[in-house]
Amino acid sequence: MKFYDCAVAPSPRRVRVFMAEKGITLPTIQVDLRKGEQFGEAFRAVNPDCTVPVLELDDGRRLTDSVGICLYLEETHPEPPLMGIDPADRSTVVEWQRRAERDGFLAVAEAFRNSTPAFKTRALPGTDDYVQIPALVERGRARTQAFFTLMNNRLAEREFVAGERYSIADITTMIAVDFAGWIKLTIPDDCPHLRRWHQAVSARPSAKA
Amino acid sequence: MKFYDCAVAPSPRRVRVFMAEKGITLPTIQVDLRKGEQFGEAFRAVNPDCTVPVLELDDGRRLTDSVGICLYLEETHPEPPLMGIDPADRSTVVEWQRRAERDGFLAVAEAFRNSTPAFKTRALPGTDDYVQIPALVERGRARTQAFFTLMNNRLAEREFVAGERYSIADITTMIAVDFAGWIKLTIPDDCPHLRRWHQAVSARPSAKA
Repeated sequence: MKFYDCAVAPSPRRVRVFMAEKGITLPTIQVDLRKGEQFGEAFRAVNPDCTVPVLELDDGRRLTDSVGICLYLEETHPEPPLMGIDPADRSTVVEWQRRAERDGFLAVAEAFRNSTPAFKTRALPGTDDYVQIPALVERGRARTQAFFTLMNNRLAEREFVAGERYSIADITTMIAVDFAGWIKLTIPDDCPHLRRWHQAVSARPSAKA
Repeated sequence: MKFYDCAVAPSPRRVRVFMAEKGITLPTIQVDLRKGEQFGEAFRAVNPDCTVPVLELDDGRRLTDSVGICLYLEETHPEPPLMGIDPADRSTVVEWQRRAERDGFLAVAEAFRNSTPAFKTRALPGTDDYVQIPALVERGRARTQAFFTLMNNRLAEREFVAGERYSIADITTMIAVDFAGWIKLTIPDDCPHLRRWHQAVSARPSAKA
């Protein structure tokens, strides 16, 4: 297998942390998103959607979705389980992974991509052009604040985002919180449970991935 | 188990079609979203996020995410498989389910919720107020058109969205295409493969669910 990555980007970091938790190391190719390498001919041949991460399997098939890649790795490297341990638990992990992605990760991305000059005509990921919409900067920031409160309330009652066990829901939430730093938002003082949790997950060796 | 539904809404239809494909029937409670029943005290006690669908398990636990509910049903009622049959296939199904949701379903929702008077201050689902942003109507419509082209290209080369087998990716895509009717967009003439596929999946008995 081969992993296409961009060391500074939050999306592929989701897979890197996931792999680090499972002790998986793979030959890795860096794609420099800041230089637009994803739009070059070489990478377009790998992924016409021009996004990372990409996991290339030994038979040549390519998986191009962060969560889809994690599912593949979960099934081929089951230990430790990061996507739940029984049907109801797996459903809860999916639910909170998606919640963290929609209300956290994508909220930050909304504010970031609509305010950063480099994304003037590319306010959404992928190959299609969409111009920035200034009103989304404020909305993205408001949603990110609401996300901090949501997760603080959730973590007041449980150790990890999906319950008793560290999971992909924690990975997405941690990366969303760190990504919020890119729009200069940090965990507010009135979110002590989120802060306690963030310190704990950030202290795991995988967080450096 | 008990299913909280709203017969006219596209989100719970995702689960209804999924259940119909598996031959699952459940006691169902209708929640009238058009009358705002989801914000009433009774339903808030079921799901504080005020969204449907909700699957209540026999032990009282509640699953509140469409895809999470489908995963639970897939594992407890494996036949026929609707989420893939091996690790790489399951990863592809996840990838295209997410693609259909993000580029199709959420694109339509963006145009619909930002233009419909009833959603003036509730342009995003859930309990938080977000005012409509007029520029998102145009963007949502443009994204929906791009989605038609994306899926037409994909279906030019395979029978179903994720490959050879009907899956949850077809369900999300079909519901996104039907939902596009709410913003008066239909499959364009230059998308014959998408049309062929849409006629086929719509003719399945499950499509009426």
